[in-house]
Amino acid sequence: MASSAMIPTCISSSKDMQVDIEKNQSHVRCQWVLNPPEPPNPWRMVTDLAEKSILRWRKNFSTLRHESWARVMFSTLQRIFPILVWGRSYTATKFRKDLLAGLTIASLCIPQSIGYATLANLDPQYGLYTSVVPPLIYAVMGTAQEIAIGPVAVVSLLLSSMVQKLRDPVFDPIAYTKLILLATLFAGIFQTAFGLFRLGFLVDFLSHAAIVGFVGGAAIVIGLQQLKGLLGVSHFTTKTDIISVIKAVWQAIHNPWNPRNFILGCSFLVFILSTRFLGKKKKKLFWLASISPLISVVVSTLLVFVTHADKNGVKIVKHVKGGLNPSSIHMLDFNNPYVGEVAKIGLIVAVVALTESVAVGRSFASIKGYQLNGNKEMVSIGITNIIGSFTSCYVATGSFSRTAVNYAAGCETLVSNIVMGMTVLISLQFMTKLLYYTPTAILASVILSALPGLIDINEALRIWKLDKFDFLACLSAFVGVLFASVEIGLLVAVAVSFSKIIVISIRPGTETLGKLPGTDLFGDVNQYPMAVKIPGLLIIRLKSALLCFANATFVRERIMKWVSEEEESMDDKGNAISQIQFVILDMSNLVNIDTSGIAALEELHKSLSSHRKQLAIANPRWQVIHKLKVSNFVNKINGRVFLTVEEAVRSKIQC
Amino acid sequence: MASSAMIPTCISSSKDMQVDIEKNQSHVRCQWVLNPPEPPNPWRMVTDLAEKSILRWRKNFSTLRHESWARVMFSTLQRIFPILVWGRSYTATKFRKDLLAGLTIASLCIPQSIGYATLANLDPQYGLYTSVVPPLIYAVMGTAQEIAIGPVAVVSLLLSSMVQKLRDPVFDPIAYTKLILLATLFAGIFQTAFGLFRLGFLVDFLSHAAIVGFVGGAAIVIGLQQLKGLLGVSHFTTKTDIISVIKAVWQAIHNPWNPRNFILGCSFLVFILSTRFLGKKKKKLFWLASISPLISVVVSTLLVFVTHADKNGVKIVKHVKGGLNPSSIHMLDFNNPYVGEVAKIGLIVAVVALTESVAVGRSFASIKGYQLNGNKEMVSIGITNIIGSFTSCYVATGSFSRTAVNYAAGCETLVSNIVMGMTVLISLQFMTKLLYYTPTAILASVILSALPGLIDINEALRIWKLDKFDFLACLSAFVGVLFASVEIGLLVAVAVSFSKIIVISIRPGTETLGKLPGTDLFGDVNQYPMAVKIPGLLIIRLKSALLCFANATFVRERIMKWVSEEEESMDDKGNAISQIQFVILDMSNLVNIDTSGIAALEELHKSLSSHRKQLAIANPRWQVIHKLKVSNFVNKINGRVFLTVEEAVRSKIQC
Repeated sequence: MASSAMIPTCISSSKDMQVDIEKNQSHVRCQWVLNPPEPPNPWRMVTDLAEKSILRWRKNFSTLRHESWARVMFSTLQRIFPILVWGRSYTATKFRKDLLAGLTIASLCIPQSIGYATLANLDPQYGLYTSVVPPLIYAVMGTAQEIAIGPVAVVSLLLSSMVQKLRDPVFDPIAYTKLILLATLFAGIFQTAFGLFRLGFLVDFLSHAAIVGFVGGAAIVIGLQQLKGLLGVSHFTTKTDIISVIKAVWQAIHNPWNPRNFILGCSFLVFILSTRFLGKKKKKLFWLASISPLISVVVSTLLVFVTHADKNGVKIVKHVKGGLNPSSIHMLDFNNPYVGEVAKIGLIVAVVALTESVAVGRSFASIKGYQLNGNKEMVSIGITNIIGSFTSCYVATGSFSRTAVNYAAGCETLVSNIVMGMTVLISLQFMTKLLYYTPTAILASVILSALPGLIDINEALRIWKLDKFDFLACLSAFVGVLFASVEIGLLVAVAVSFSKIIVISIRPGTETLGKLPGTDLFGDVNQYPMAVKIPGLLIIRLKSALLCFANATFVRERIMKWVSEEEESMDDKGNAISQIQFVILDMSNLVNIDTSGIAALEELHKSLSSHRKQLAIANPRWQVIHKLKVSNFVNKINGRVFLTVEEAVRSKIQC
Repeated sequence: MASSAMIPTCISSSKDMQVDIEKNQSHVRCQWVLNPPEPPNPWRMVTDLAEKSILRWRKNFSTLRHESWARVMFSTLQRIFPILVWGRSYTATKFRKDLLAGLTIASLCIPQSIGYATLANLDPQYGLYTSVVPPLIYAVMGTAQEIAIGPVAVVSLLLSSMVQKLRDPVFDPIAYTKLILLATLFAGIFQTAFGLFRLGFLVDFLSHAAIVGFVGGAAIVIGLQQLKGLLGVSHFTTKTDIISVIKAVWQAIHNPWNPRNFILGCSFLVFILSTRFLGKKKKKLFWLASISPLISVVVSTLLVFVTHADKNGVKIVKHVKGGLNPSSIHMLDFNNPYVGEVAKIGLIVAVVALTESVAVGRSFASIKGYQLNGNKEMVSIGITNIIGSFTSCYVATGSFSRTAVNYAAGCETLVSNIVMGMTVLISLQFMTKLLYYTPTAILASVILSALPGLIDINEALRIWKLDKFDFLACLSAFVGVLFASVEIGLLVAVAVSFSKIIVISIRPGTETLGKLPGTDLFGDVNQYPMAVKIPGLLIIRLKSALLCFANATFVRERIMKWVSEEEESMDDKGNAISQIQFVILDMSNLVNIDTSGIAALEELHKSLSSHRKQLAIANPRWQVIHKLKVSNFVNKINGRVFLTVEEAVRSKIQC
């Protein structure tokens, strides 16, 4: 590139030294822009990345070589089982706190687990099983200290709504349970794979707004499903959309039904909700809120047992199989015809479960000020679920509500999960018989009482205030879950979220810049109303990081339109303001450009030239200036490339 | 927002007036950033857009009201039929040029049309029909003056490869032809709709690189299909992928075949290619290249007629139905079972045909320096095809090769298309009988001779040099067309092109900035090696226009990693360089942010605070600063928002 092209070919009339020095400096700066080092080649970047990883491995290996095998083993084990690290500084004081927290969440967990198992169309004991093994496994592998692992509402709903399309849980409960366990195994495998292959970003595909809408919609769906238990009806729709459920409820209340269930359920719901209210008002009473579900179960069970209400139409849980988690390896049948479908379900559930768990873990980690390793977290949850599927557990993940209780109860480490797991184990061993007379309406009210926390109207309002498009994603997830199905809600949310990225890429805005008074800076004339446009110049900036096939034509046409609009615009006295002679394209935003983008710039240059206007470029970035040089575009515009808009403007004015 | 938060709470030790003034100015500029006018609300933008459109309509209407009905009619007609505008200044001189150009493209068009009809598995006359009506219609409606309308190779291949999956053209030629005509109608309707609803951007979904690869692959596929004619075999594969075709050729040459066809075809191919070579060397001889296909047809037909070669195994065209385009309205059967499939085919063909036509029209318009109205262009091509489908034409569009010849022959206006149409019409009326003895091998060589122009190896090399990812799109389109099918090639090309946008959005780069010597500017330390990092400060810029759900977590983690890497890095003497105290986020690139992005910034702030580091923001854009204010983030970081990186740095150094 001829260096003579750098200095605009014009004769400075002023012979002032100052101007000469400035021009010289400006020339030097143009050279900075035009002759940067070669930007990294994409292939080179890939090989560099591989090299770095190998180097890191080697370094690890070489430090290990000098140590004894025992130490190497131990440090590897420590990486896999973080409990070996934090466990060494564990103290009795911490244990006292963890014990209290563990017992608190266990009391909340037992009724919730049974309820969620019912929601997942499984026998009640599966919920309890899922509250035993997963917390214990996670406790030795996980890195988030406050999380409470176990069955959660959204995952239970998602699993049942998808698996019951394959097998009917009422007519063929064993085959249905087998599919659920298989889906759990697949979910665990996918989660582990995501972590191992560093695919953690898949969890980000569900945007914050979409999650708010999705969880809110799911909560309402779950609530509606509880009407079955609350009304004490036997036949109910298997669909989850609001219209089917309302129809089913309508049919149910027009058939003979027993109001005793409803009254029982509602009165305990009021009790639980009012203790929760009390707990929020007085922080010291929060334990009451935590154990009120268990109190409700105990009191209502006694009530039914004493009054023989089950004889009068109050539905009860009846037999809950007790004992330790049985092995379920024999139930994992890979030869069944639905294995492909189940794998797909596993994938969806894996992502949703991880989204909940990572969101929960991250928010409490940031409160306590430690960093969560997303990939390690995924592997832990994944292995938890794989082992869970061998021991009669369905998909477990970090629960929003119980984690909050765990934190509030003052848990210090994951030992509270161990305490919870052991407590549930003991209940399974010795106390399942006591659950015989528990009314199903109570389980419904326990689940219902957990739902208000999932419907976050304030957050939805905040999203509306902040970002209308995000609110659209939120709303469509909500409506999708409510009126179509859980999977469609998820799909719509992901689609809406991504369509925003695409729309912004294919229809980027452009802005004209003006000089900010008293500075050398140029800013958007709309954002900075004090910015002054320079007559005869049009300075345009593109609001996109990419000038590519999808937006190149649009941008080219938009700029030509700016030029003609600018020339047509009149000042107050009705005179055309000025003839544009110079168009400066501020490329500070533009991170990359592709061949279509370069072609568009070339066409723009041609069109402007044919109208006797000059095109100049300010502040091109590394990749962009490299490509503009390689494609010979810089020569075509006579090297009118500048470090800043200000220098481009000055070069014109000096001419 | 309290204004006291704007001035960093520190006591300046220097009492210099200069510093005071600077601080005061800096304060004013911070206010500019923090209190911009309200950015336009998305809903507001939509209503504004609607209002503007209505205003424009009204304005048009009110200017029209004062005029007579006749004038109104005429101006509307002028808009629909641009020929009424440019036709008024038409002169005899222009006509002389157009006549010459029209005759030249007609001579090229007749053999090509017959060849392309054969490629589309239609009777030869359909190709000629398509060269009569569409050019006439387009001539009165179109805006591109140099374009030559008619059947083209890629569209013929695409149509036949997709429609023959529905109906076999050999066993049921009438049903096949009906489907082709129906697809043409659908294509026309879609094209018109794209234009009317301003959906022109759909054409941009095929990136420049993808088109180069796709057209190159299609050219090779078309060339391979010509081996059927060149070898004179009757049975050939209906598949288009290279492996099936090579197998079919292999089988054909292992059965008895007549080399006469091959020799005849090849010798005329050599003739046509050498005239083309001559035409390129000497511009004056370009007419020889243009009419050499017609010469070949005439000479070879005479040769066969005189030598009775058709008795000796030379395949001939035989009967070509003569006469005017017959009406085909009765052939458009909407009740056939494939109507949905055909509509889909119509959509694909519509996009591909428009892509070719718009690309051709645009490149010649930019040479001649006028602007093409993409939407009007689409409507014109669409109506051309709709009327075409009523008059036995299949999909017509602007042809690359004939448009170039038209331009080189010195055409002035679309009258050359009228001349061409009329010439083909006359040939259809009086000369189809002369085509009886035309050898099919000659048609194959006419098509083959047009293909080298479609395979643009230089452009592919240029793409490789400019953008490796673009080259990947190009290559995958090429390979897809060649080894799978034409549709799969298209699909892969679109998918690869869009995946780039998504990948860049979810994995944006970050860069650290340093101060450029002698300026107040900060630049990427890799792009500008002379830039100097400031000790104790980390200045980071994000290489993305969006901080959103898809990249927020990644960016947050990346920045935290930068911070720890920066603190770990050693200087030459092995000392840790410095403790980072202040992280400045240069937001100049960031056009928008969503709720996930804000949440990530909040978490980043929390993490940095817990390590006793401060976060500051420089140059936030309109939407971004608005949202950061609404979400209260600005207060959380104590109002550390600055107009430039330089001011952020200075505020820290003064402390």
